[in-house]
Parts: sequence; C-alpha cells; structure tokens
Amino acid sequence: MTASSAHAGLPASAPVVDLNSDLGEGFGPWTLGDDEALLDIVTSANVACGFHAGDPSIMRRVCARAVERGVAIGAQVSYRDLAGFGRRPIAVDPAELADEVLYQLGALDGIARVEGGRVAYLKPHGALYNTIVTDEAQAVAVVEAVRRYDPAMPVLGLPGSAFLRLAAEAGLTTVGEAFADRAYTPAGHLVPRRTTGAVLHDADLIAERCVQLVTAGTVAAVDGTPVPVAARSICVHGDTDGAVAIARRVRESLLKAGVTVRRFTGSGSFTGNVGIGEG
Amino acid sequence: MTASSAHAGLPASAPVVDLNSDLGEGFGPWTLGDDEALLDIVTSANVACGFHAGDPSIMRRVCARAVERGVAIGAQVSYRDLAGFGRRPIAVDPAELADEVLYQLGALDGIARVEGGRVAYLKPHGALYNTIVTDEAQAVAVVEAVRRYDPAMPVLGLPGSAFLRLAAEAGLTTVGEAFADRAYTPAGHLVPRRTTGAVLHDADLIAERCVQLVTAGTVAAVDGTPVPVAARSICVHGDTDGAVAIARRVRESLLKAGVTVRRFTGSGSFTGNVGIGEG
Amino acid sequence: MTASSAHAGLPASAPVVDLNSDLGEGFGPWTLGDDEALLDIVTSANVACGFHAGDPSIMRRVCARAVERGVAIGAQVSYRDLAGFGRRPIAVDPAELADEVLYQLGALDGIARVEGGRVAYLKPHGALYNTIVTDEAQAVAVVEAVRRYDPAMPVLGLPGSAFLRLAAEAGLTTVGEAFADRAYTPAGHLVPRRTTGAVLHDADLIAERCVQLVTAGTVAAVDGTPVPVAARSICVHGDTDGAVAIARRVRESLLKAGVTVRRFTGSGSFTGNVGIGEG
Amino acid sequence: MTASSAHAGLPASAPVVDLNSDLGEGFGPWTLGDDEALLDIVTSANVACGFHAGDPSIMRRVCARAVERGVAIGAQVSYRDLAGFGRRPIAVDPAELADEVLYQLGALDGIARVEGGRVAYLKPHGALYNTIVTDEAQAVAVVEAVRRYDPAMPVLGLPGSAFLRLAAEAGLTTVGEAFADRAYTPAGHLVPRRTTGAVLHDADLIAERCVQLVTAGTVAAVDGTPVPVAARSICVHGDTDGAVAIARRVRESLLKAGVTVRRFTGSGSFTGNVGIGEG
Repeated sequence: MTASSAHAGLPASAPVVDLNSDLGEGFGPWTLGDDEALLDIVTSANVACGFHAGDPSIMRRVCARAVERGVAIGAQVSYRDLAGFGRRPIAVDPAELADEVLYQLGALDGIARVEGGRVAYLKPHGALYNTIVTDEAQAVAVVEAVRRYDPAMPVLGLPGSAFLRLAAEAGLTTVGEAFADRAYTPAGHLVPRRTTGAVLHDADLIAERCVQLVTAGTVAAVDGTPVPVAARSICVHGDTDGAVAIARRVRESLLKAGVTVRRFTGSGSFTGNVGIGEG
Repeated sequence: MTASSAHAGLPASAPVVDLNSDLGEGFGPWTLGDDEALLDIVTSANVACGFHAGDPSIMRRVCARAVERGVAIGAQVSYRDLAGFGRRPIAVDPAELADEVLYQLGALDGIARVEGGRVAYLKPHGALYNTIVTDEAQAVAVVEAVRRYDPAMPVLGLPGSAFLRLAAEAGLTTVGEAFADRAYTPAGHLVPRRTTGAVLHDADLIAERCVQLVTAGTVAAVDGTPVPVAARSICVHGDTDGAVAIARRVRESLLKAGVTVRRFTGSGSFTGNVGIGEG
Repeated sequence: MTASSAHAGLPASAPVVDLNSDLGEGFGPWTLGDDEALLDIVTSANVACGFHAGDPSIMRRVCARAVERGVAIGAQVSYRDLAGFGRRPIAVDPAELADEVLYQLGALDGIARVEGGRVAYLKPHGALYNTIVTDEAQAVAVVEAVRRYDPAMPVLGLPGSAFLRLAAEAGLTTVGEAFADRAYTPAGHLVPRRTTGAVLHDADLIAERCVQLVTAGTVAAVDGTPVPVAARSICVHGDTDGAVAIARRVRESLLKAGVTVRRFTGSGSFTGNVGIGEG
Repeated sequence: MTASSAHAGLPASAPVVDLNSDLGEGFGPWTLGDDEALLDIVTSANVACGFHAGDPSIMRRVCARAVERGVAIGAQVSYRDLAGFGRRPIAVDPAELADEVLYQLGALDGIARVEGGRVAYLKPHGALYNTIVTDEAQAVAVVEAVRRYDPAMPVLGLPGSAFLRLAAEAGLTTVGEAFADRAYTPAGHLVPRRTTGAVLHDADLIAERCVQLVTAGTVAAVDGTPVPVAARSICVHGDTDGAVAIARRVRESLLKAGVTVRRFTGSGSFTGNVGIGEG
C-alpha cells in the first residue's frame, strides 16, 4: 500500500490516529495552556523552541514529562517573534529561515536527549505554518533544514500544503493533520477562521467528527457532504479549560469507538528516527 | 604520567599546544573580529551560540569553515544578554542557567552536525567565564549541563578555577588555557585587566612568551620569575587587525620553535567525543 | 511639617494613603495578574515598560484605563531581562543602566501622553528594586536618570534604602512604601521572603495591619511590638485571585476606617509634575 | 506658493536642501557606519530606536552629538526585528504597529530631551519604509502614531508613497527625500535595487546629480531625460568609508553650487515643533 492510498480517506483495517497539541508555550514567568493535562491526552507534543514561546527550562520540563509518558516530542519551530507569538508573517530570507529552524531543532533536540528522548518530528507554528501552505521558497527552507538535520525525521502539517508536498518530494515522511474543532468546506479545506461557524465548540459534535474522521476517513463539510481528509493526526488545543475538556472528550470517544490512539512516530526506542517512515 | 603532572609546568617530550579564539561573535548585520583570518590561525574555535552574539546563519557559516579546515568547534555559551554582549554578570538561578547552557549547546551542535562537524568542547563566555572562576553554584550548573549532554565533552577554562575543579570532580575532561597577551602574577594568576601592564601589546614579546609557555611550561611573571601555568591551549584574539597579527605571530613562532599546534580534541573523525579525553 | 517628620511614623491629622500595584506585566500573548480588577482598587499603577514585561500595546491599554479612572501612571523600570522577568540581579554598568532607565521612562511617557496622561512617578522592579536598596552605584544611576528626565518626578521605593536616600539627596521627591502582606522585624525591616511567616495570607489581618499603618504609622513586628514604618503608599498584589481579593479588602477597610485613599502624585491635571513634591 | 508646487520640481529662488542619514545603528558591542563623520556632513540624523538597532547608550550618545552640532534628531522607527536589522517585512497588526512606533518615538524623545534636544521628525526604517510605500493599513498606523504623539511632527519618506500621501491627508507635514546614489526611471521612480546600474558609485557623478536635483528640481533618469523629483532632503549613507566620502563630496558640491544645506525642521529652538510645517 502506498503512502498516498493510505491517506486517501479509506478506513484502515485497524483504525489508528495520533493526537497532537501545542505545549510549552509559556515563557519566563508566563504560562499558556495546561501542559500537564494535555500530556495525559495527546500522543504527540509540539514543543515550542524559544522563538515564539518556550524558554529552556519550560522546554526541559515538557520534554521530561513527555518522555515519562511516552508522548512524542515534536519541534514546534517558528519565526523569531516573541512579541507577536509567531503569529506575524515575516518575509524572512529562506536561507536565514533554514538556519533559524536548524537552531531551534538542535536546541530542543539537545534538551530532549538530556531527558532521555529525541525530537521525533517537526511541526511549524503559527504564521510560519500558514505561510508555507503556499510559499514554496519558505517551505523549501523548512524542508531542507529537516532533511539536513535528519532525513528520517517526519514533518507534520496541513494536507495539501506546499510544505508537505515539497517535503515528500525531498524524501521526508509527511504526516497530515486534521483540526478537531474546525469546519471544512466541501472541497476539503478549512473554513477560514473569521467565517461564522469556522470554529466548533460542541464537545460531543467535535468528538463524533473525530471518530468519523478516523473510522471513515471523512469529515462532514459545512453543507453536510462527507469529504475525505488525509490525516494521520488530529490537532487538539489546550489553551482554555474548555479546550482541554474537548480534547479529553475526543480521546475518550476515539478509544470507545475502538480507535487506537498512538503517536505516529516510533514509540520510544529513542535509538534514532530510522525506520519510522511509513508515510 | 597523570594528567596533573602533565599540567605541572614540565615540558612535554613533544611539545604540543592548542590555539583557541572566539569566533562568530557578530549578530544580524553586525560583525566583530575577523573570523576568516582566525580560522587559518587557531585550532579551536569558540563559537558564539546566540545568547551574547551569533545568529544561526553566522553559526552555520563558522561551523562550515571550521569543518573545512579541521578546526575544532567549541560551544561558547553565555548568559542571555545580547545588549551587554554577555559581559554583565547575572545572578541567574543555577537550574535555569543549566537549561540555558543546554539550549545553546544543542543549538550549536545541531548546526555543526549539519555541516559535518560536532561540538567538540565547551568554553564559557565573558561574565559567565569570570563568575564561575569562583561561584560554585553557577559552575556546577555549567558542569552538569555538559555532563548530561555528553560526559565525554571536554571543557575549556581558567586553570585553578572552581569551574575546572568541579568539572574534573564530575568526571569531565578539563583543559586549562593561558592568555597570550596577559601578564601573570608571581602566584600564577592573571594581573587584573585594569592594572597598568595587564595587557601586553608587543607581538614579539607575546610570541616569545607563548613559546616559553609551551616548551618550558612557564611564563615570566611581572617580577620576572618564571611561574608554571597549566595550559594545553592558548587563547588569542581577533577583534582588531592588531590582534589578528599578534595571533598569527604566535602561531608562526610556535611552529618555528618546533611546537605542534593541534586541537586538543579528536582531530576531525566526528564519530563522537569518545576517546578524546586525555586531560 | 517637614518631609522627614511626615515619614516618621506619626499619624497625619487626616489619614491619607496611596495604594500601588504592578500592572501591565503581560507580554505578547501572555498575561499576568488582573489589571482590570486592580485598576478599581489602586491609586497608583506601576506599569511595566517592556524590559521585564509589558509590550507597547499592553502599556497603552493600561495607560488608557488608568487615565480614565484617575489612577497615577508610574514607570516600573527594570533590568533588560524578559526571560527572567527582571528578577535576575544584573551587574550592569551604571551608565548603561541610567540609559536603559531613560529609554523605558521615555517609552512609557510617550504612550501615556497619547492617552492623555503622563508618567507621574518611577518605581524600580524586581531585582533592580532589591539591588538598589544597597548598591549605591546602581541607585545613583536610577536617580540620575529620573533627575535628568524630570527633576519634579517622585520616586517610589523602600524606606531606608540607598535608593530613596540618594534620590532625596539629589533633590527628588521620595515616597516610601509598605508591603501589605509582609511581616516586619522589630527593627522595621521586611522579614526575608524565604523565612517562615514572611508572607501573610489572612485578608482580615492584612487589612487590619494596613489600617494601623496609616492611622498609627506603625505595624506590628513579628514579636508583636509596634514599629514605625515611613510609608505614604502601600503595595498590593494582583497576580492571583486571592491577591486581588486581599487588595480589595485592604482598600475597603481603609475607607471604612476613614482613611482617604489617594494617589500621592498630582491628581490628574497632567500639566506636568511641577508642584507635586511634598515628600 | 502651495506645498505641492514647492515640490513640483521647480527650482526655489534660494536653493535649500536637507541631508539625512541613518545613525546610531550599532547595538551593544557592535557598530555600523561612521556616526562621527556623518554628524559633520548631514543636517538630519535618523536615529535608530532599539527595534532594529540602537541601544539606549548609543541613542544617547548620538543625540548628545547631534544637539551639539545642531543636527536634527529623527526617530528612525522599525519593525521589532533585531536579528533581521528591520529588513524583514512583517505583517504586523496595524494597531500593534502603531503602539510599537509610539514606544520607539517616546523612548528616543525621552533620551533626546535629556540631551537638550527633541525628536524633530520621524522616518521609517528598512522593510517598514518599503512596505508603507504601498501598504495603506500599515502606513495609517505609522501616521496615526505620529499624529497622536505630536501633530506638528513632520515625517520623512518616499515621494509618491502611500505613507506621505496619507500623512498629508491626516494633516502632518510631509517631507520627500531623494537618494543620492540611486538611479531613477523616466517615470521618476527608483530603479529597483537588483537591477544593474541601480546604485551609483561615482562620487563626482553623484554630487553633480544632487546639485541638479536641488537647483533644477530634476534628476537625469536612466535614459538621460530629466525627471522632476519632489525632494526637500537627500539621503546619504555612511556604512562604508566610501559612502562617507561620497556623502562629504555631496555636501561640498552643494555648498560650492550656492545651495544652503539646512535641516528641514526648526533649527534648534526645541520649544516644540509648532510652526515648522512648510510642506
């Protein structure tokens, strides 16, 4: 079975999915989100690397807890933008962007290793995530940073993005994600965040949609039609109490529906990333 | 022969020394020192890691050039202090300091590996270097960061410092350095920088003293008496044209005197730091 | 009545006090404390100026709200230390410190003026506050920055500190503060924070002590003896829900006891600081 | 005579021009350009305000020297981007941008006042300068920051830019600048920097063009035709020895041609900016 068919919306014989969330997004005295609660829910932690959030002590604490629980550590790399929390699109030179990604990747990996883990994958944050959905020059910069750092390291991103396409072309393992609380168009795209109804708030509905996504490979679009979504991971949030409750409900509903919730990367052998690539 | 006797001021049968210098101390549009010139003179490059200087692109460029020339890459870690260039003593919590050191170490190592190298040793910068000559809590923080990151990684510092003593007690390889252009007291300490005559400027004299240091294991103190200095590396500077010229003269004089100028770490196999430790 | 007698612990005929608190201590996406609640309680807002916390948008919002409510805007200046929240003592060169204080002062004043206010006083933050209790060189740096910026601008600090003493000698108006929730030694000093019992948590007790401070000019020391505390302002906190509740209780109890709670600076004419100085 | 006719390329009866340059663009240990040399050449200093360059001590030193020589102090405001030197276009929210501009403006003004000066005008730096040539939302943000700070403060920018147009509509005094060393298209636009011949290097030719600009109100376009350029200030550079030499030649040639080289803002009364606006 090829990677593309695995992603085409067909249910796998044994349904499996990864749950990922942003963690370690505090800085200095400031916190954001409930890292502790999320580490009991998700299987992959996108750990902030210091450029939009995440100081070294927070990074180390999150890595230690993630390793304890077998949660995969991902490098949540960002533009250098602490004041804007990485949400400001920056037209940085691609060569400099690649170097900044490498810096963050290495910093987190060093800390992860000290805590008995490794960086198992990379997921871009915020404005960088959104920019490389279409900006090929910046997408290539991120891809090249990963490829040069460890060609066996998977990248997590938006299905259909330039980033995942270029990553796959460069030989990287690519993992698409769905968003638990977002509405989709009949074409399978996210409804833009500012549109009414773009973000769902009903925990039951969200959990039900996640189960359908994993077991049927589809989500109901805003017009009710089921559309295929090629996602091996579901992104959940933890920045409010409500968000944590939704994330917990998603996990419980998936387990109840017989879905295996499992990290998409190697499960903790920490002997390098070789052999992970199934995408 | 034990490490300590090797350092006791006795000439080695085949005199060998390392030359180290601070490199990559620019940031963004700014440069400091002549990295290119120094890379042809030194055998060990103390590369700034972004906390006092050194952006990711500068770090990568210096690493690439160092690998090309077989120059060892050292992590020149610092307090988080860009505005003060790491020269402001900061009473940072030791646990946070350890994490900040790890962050810098991992970031540089990630970049070095992409360029075919590795971080081969660590040398603290500026105020951190000076503080841990006596501050044991901060010294232990740096030592523990290195030990947890790679117990085979040597540390470069001031002979007689709490840092090197505690590093040795923790099982790390320690390498003492002498300063080419500094005057020494009869007790073997550096003459404080603000004292008249603390810094030497005569290239011939400096070069001659370096030769004596390596071949005889001593330097002439300010009162003329030869004092033993336990140094396997000599620190040279490159922040002015004059400094580079002095560094070049030092190297030439050492070679002329039959001294082997060689990095104190493994010479470029880049298969890890195992087996390096001779200190 | 001279300034010094006003501070000597004697009750004023019409008891008056200022309540101050740290505000605007978020940064980017992060918040700290309940600014809105505090602005209804305090009469002086120590606004973070961007070096330990406080981005320009937060600063502007707090200034706007403070002006609306007649709350005085104070420049809560800090060491340049976002990662450490200004809690790391930094041995910065006094000349550089003075310039950094000026920079923060000007930045906040510019924003305050746009919102119809002015910076009415200066209070150092965190490690800088503590350092200049005894470090005269740094204390002079802060004093000189204020004096050069506006010799009519009062400074708020610890009674008995080098900072207030040197400020007074330089001709600045000085205002001492007491801490609502801190225990005092029989000598009138704060019990060090790490000592058991150093921080009080009982809202009733705290409020009662504040009333005694303002009406009698004394607080009960840890051994029960009343000690004079020369404070025209009381510092309250807002970083937890409990802290806000205590602050509110303090204000209510003061009002109930007939105390006028009023900013120590000119009350909103915003025509400059001339004529404020009564200290 | 209306402002627009003054800018229409007609020679003034008594030819006058301002020379402006970027100053204070170092940070911490790093320097960029020869501030001392430029302060003897230019009449307006665009002083970096800390967001792309310029620490408080550099700002203060440049302000002190500018006041001594009667050189106007301009706020060279930038995106928050030290690593990218403000050359990275950032899609920052306009409201946040306005606040960041205010912060920088206030910071520099505070420092300038301490040195006996005032911020006399504002000129955006780097990517911000270029972005608001066309981006109206960001242009309005900068305009509003200036207008709210001091409606009498002139702004310096590119003739024909959205920035100057919107500033004029908001009632601000606008001052257009020409670039001494840049080629112009027959339509009066700058030849894009990457085009061959976009940047001129011949000091004689550059100086001659500047004289023509001021005396005839035109520059020779790349095809030789004279095109009107509405500039009351000429921007010169100081980042290399060659650049300083060119700037000096421009000044000397202008003086020799009978041109008065004078700041476009009030000449040192420092009683506010009222009455300056002639644009």
